[in-house]
Amino acid sequence: MSRPNRSEIDTLIDLLARLPGLGPRSARRAVLFLIRKRGILLQPLAEAMQAVAQNARECLNCGNVGTTEICEICSDDTRANGLLCVVEDVADLWAMERAGAFRGRYHVLGGTLSALDGVGPDELRIPQLKDRIAGEEITEVILALNQTVDGQTTAHYIADQIEDRVALSSLAQGVPIGGELDYLDDGTIGAALNARKRL
Amino acid sequence: MSRPNRSEIDTLIDLLARLPGLGPRSARRAVLFLIRKRGILLQPLAEAMQAVAQNARECLNCGNVGTTEICEICSDDTRANGLLCVVEDVADLWAMERAGAFRGRYHVLGGTLSALDGVGPDELRIPQLKDRIAGEEITEVILALNQTVDGQTTAHYIADQIEDRVALSSLAQGVPIGGELDYLDDGTIGAALNARKRL
Repeated sequence: MSRPNRSEIDTLIDLLARLPGLGPRSARRAVLFLIRKRGILLQPLAEAMQAVAQNARECLNCGNVGTTEICEICSDDTRANGLLCVVEDVADLWAMERAGAFRGRYHVLGGTLSALDGVGPDELRIPQLKDRIAGEEITEVILALNQTVDGQTTAHYIADQIEDRVALSSLAQGVPIGGELDYLDDGTIGAALNARKRL
Repeated sequence: MSRPNRSEIDTLIDLLARLPGLGPRSARRAVLFLIRKRGILLQPLAEAMQAVAQNARECLNCGNVGTTEICEICSDDTRANGLLCVVEDVADLWAMERAGAFRGRYHVLGGTLSALDGVGPDELRIPQLKDRIAGEEITEVILALNQTVDGQTTAHYIADQIEDRVALSSLAQGVPIGGELDYLDDGTIGAALNARKRL
């Protein structure tokens, strides 16, 4: 081959190819794109990565990712205390925030229980959840876990642990906004029918 | 929304989302992945980008991308002179090199002719190609442009310009290795039939 010395460009391609959603081919494309846009994209991207590498941290309270010890949501005085939304991952928290429909606090578990992968309650932030329920005068916990087997197993486990201390709820199941029945799975249609609303 | 101050994390997401093959959602996923792997991936990636931003340059001779004024291929004494492979983009050059089947020199055009986009011969590296043919004692030019309308239009234009000075060839058309006839388009099957080889 004609590139015997691993150049900085090859190193960059290899590192980029490790990102989720990118493979070797798309990493090569991305690097060529970045080199063409050296000044306006590659340099700012390098600096933004450096800044995030130095400043990103997990919120000590809820597990959200931010640049402060206690995240913006936990330290926001305008949000309701007492109402706690439990999510699997930071990505789910961000999705809830984009929806803009929730003004309480969050608790990020950091995954789901999984016997196969050896993930027990102590690998997740379940002990911290119990501490918060005791310490923060939480009155309602919304279990906003994914509608997957692992997500719902985890939700049941948590419900079991805390149901005598707080009111529990979960997100409604049904037809998504803009959804077409013909494209929905049987389970969703069944759930939407069971939870039908009187007009 | 709860993230009123644009944090470094948001900046990084926005920049990553501009890469080809990534959108806002995959950029968010990638950033969360990078934050989890701060030490082993994010920091090295930031440094690799910085290095490439500072060192990447186009080879003055052939248009390949590397970290030196004249690229490794152009300055490799073991490669054949006189045989020049013309490709559209650096990505195509890299693909040829991965195949490892060519040991001559390259010339990267930087795109294809396009009346619609206002790309004429002078926007590509066609003048430089003519200079090299005159100056480097090139005897054969392989037009390895893509089998697209634009690629083939450009190949015809170049052939027209230089056919009286050098031997010209193009990559063979036919059935790809591992290819199944049932999945091939009619044009490819026709070309493979016309170029059939006697056993």
